[in-house]
Amino acid sequence: MGKPLKGISVFILAFSTSLIFSVSVQAADPLPSWNAGPSKSAIIEFVAAVTDKNSKDYVEPGRRIATFDNDGTLWVEYPMYTQVLFAFDRVKKLAPQHPEWKTKQPFKALLAGDMKTVGASGMKGVAELVMASHAGMTSDEFTQDVTRWLATARHPKLGCLYKECIYQPQLELLTYLRANEFKTFIVSGGGIQFMRPMTMKAYGIPPWQVVGSSIVSEFQTKDGKSAIVRQPKIDFIDDKAGKPVGIYSHIGVRPILAFGNADADMQMIEYTRAGKGRRLGLFVHHTDADREYAYDRNSHVGQLDKALDQADANGWIIVDMKKDWRQVFPEK
Amino acid sequence: MGKPLKGISVFILAFSTSLIFSVSVQAADPLPSWNAGPSKSAIIEFVAAVTDKNSKDYVEPGRRIATFDNDGTLWVEYPMYTQVLFAFDRVKKLAPQHPEWKTKQPFKALLAGDMKTVGASGMKGVAELVMASHAGMTSDEFTQDVTRWLATARHPKLGCLYKECIYQPQLELLTYLRANEFKTFIVSGGGIQFMRPMTMKAYGIPPWQVVGSSIVSEFQTKDGKSAIVRQPKIDFIDDKAGKPVGIYSHIGVRPILAFGNADADMQMIEYTRAGKGRRLGLFVHHTDADREYAYDRNSHVGQLDKALDQADANGWIIVDMKKDWRQVFPEK
Repeated sequence: MGKPLKGISVFILAFSTSLIFSVSVQAADPLPSWNAGPSKSAIIEFVAAVTDKNSKDYVEPGRRIATFDNDGTLWVEYPMYTQVLFAFDRVKKLAPQHPEWKTKQPFKALLAGDMKTVGASGMKGVAELVMASHAGMTSDEFTQDVTRWLATARHPKLGCLYKECIYQPQLELLTYLRANEFKTFIVSGGGIQFMRPMTMKAYGIPPWQVVGSSIVSEFQTKDGKSAIVRQPKIDFIDDKAGKPVGIYSHIGVRPILAFGNADADMQMIEYTRAGKGRRLGLFVHHTDADREYAYDRNSHVGQLDKALDQADANGWIIVDMKKDWRQVFPEK
Repeated sequence: MGKPLKGISVFILAFSTSLIFSVSVQAADPLPSWNAGPSKSAIIEFVAAVTDKNSKDYVEPGRRIATFDNDGTLWVEYPMYTQVLFAFDRVKKLAPQHPEWKTKQPFKALLAGDMKTVGASGMKGVAELVMASHAGMTSDEFTQDVTRWLATARHPKLGCLYKECIYQPQLELLTYLRANEFKTFIVSGGGIQFMRPMTMKAYGIPPWQVVGSSIVSEFQTKDGKSAIVRQPKIDFIDDKAGKPVGIYSHIGVRPILAFGNADADMQMIEYTRAGKGRRLGLFVHHTDADREYAYDRNSHVGQLDKALDQADANGWIIVDMKKDWRQVFPEK
């Protein structure tokens, strides 16, 4: 009876293996750092609907555009936007070449560590610091400045390098969307050329899929070589009503999914959802003082106020960091 | 002797088949519409060098950026840029809603078919016609206008739909570059939103890999829906020194290959070649009055003059349409 039994065993073994395999494939969770709940379900159901050829909500791959804010949505923005900290550090580093800053505000205050006076100089003062650190060099020099700074600059409370203070659940979401033939873009109020040196490695998003604010740049011939030289003049602010405009200019296709974390993302999400067919708009709500930070209506960065009030009426998903995210940062 | 012979025959047969197969793979020409010659060799050698991991010229895939001008480089621009013809046709179509155009130049001349007076109105006059046809509507409405026009507008001499008056050798080059992990971009003086409705189907280039000139656009809420509304004001001219700036803004990586056809492409090619490592810059020279057109130094479109003089000294490749292209347009 040896042979027949063996045949049956092999058959059973093969059958169970394929059963286990198919169950495990079905059960594989594409978003393991997201807790079960309405936010996770909304994402999974949305992706299933727009990728199902038999669904009325089907969207062809070339139009599966997902846009993500950066500060507070993909990486940490609290207690201060990373780019502003870069500007402050650059001004300090450049100070020996600018003796005039010793007597000129807000440079004088910044160099003396008097952050209260820097803050009191308002947007105008901060803009002067940003221009002094972001303009006057070639595009290649600026990329090098940013890359060098990001290599060592570290978040004082969280301990991570800023470029690694990124949210694990969002990394999983980006990967999940791309696996479902979405194109993933960043659409941020932050500087487009400040973000580009880090987005590929951190998020898998190449430089040409990054949209952001910019200063004017000019093509010049310098030292016999052609170069782009950065000018101390605002070109475009990719924030609030600027975000849909940045999307139109850089992407040229209206997103079907948009993810932000602040009132400044409302227009991007409104524009996304105003398109025909099924759309998804989400906000990260920073509710987790233990693992990250808790801030919203009265915050000096990433203020989330009107969007909280209007979310239900508009069908926007508010992702509660504390409840919805099982893990906030990647494993070390 | 039956069996051994059969075995040997099968062996020989298998060997020859694999030999033929490997020879045919090696011999497969990725650019069949390009005649053998220095232009074709320069392209093939360049691609081989930058994709060979053992070459000193190796470039990682994420930096294999190729930029192409559109008018006269990918599609026909003679005797007039397609977008200008679209503008003229739109103005004629919109005329019933604008009785004031009956007495206002250059509208009056255009509506009367007096192209001499239209031409005499210069850049200012043509700009007025372009604005009247390109601004004042939502982004979606403009895309529909362009799509509808491109569906039927036909080149008077060549007979092709404008969107199909595209160069077969360039289609092969785009495919060849993408097969070698290049990202292909359009960088054109033409309107970014005028090109986007046709580039994916014609060239396999998605909307977000198109860089071009633009007018200002604004995010507005209209009829209770969010929309981008196009404004009659120039935002950016992606031509001459604007091309490297457009590349920096939209792509964020300096190209390693750039292809144009006019003096207005010199800065893009200069910028491309000024980067470190091996680079390739090319111009189409329209030399073929039989199959397309012959024009260069004194042309009213796509003027190619200084670039012809400086090509040798700068190592730019001048592609001679008549000599270098075996076939100009795709088979019908």
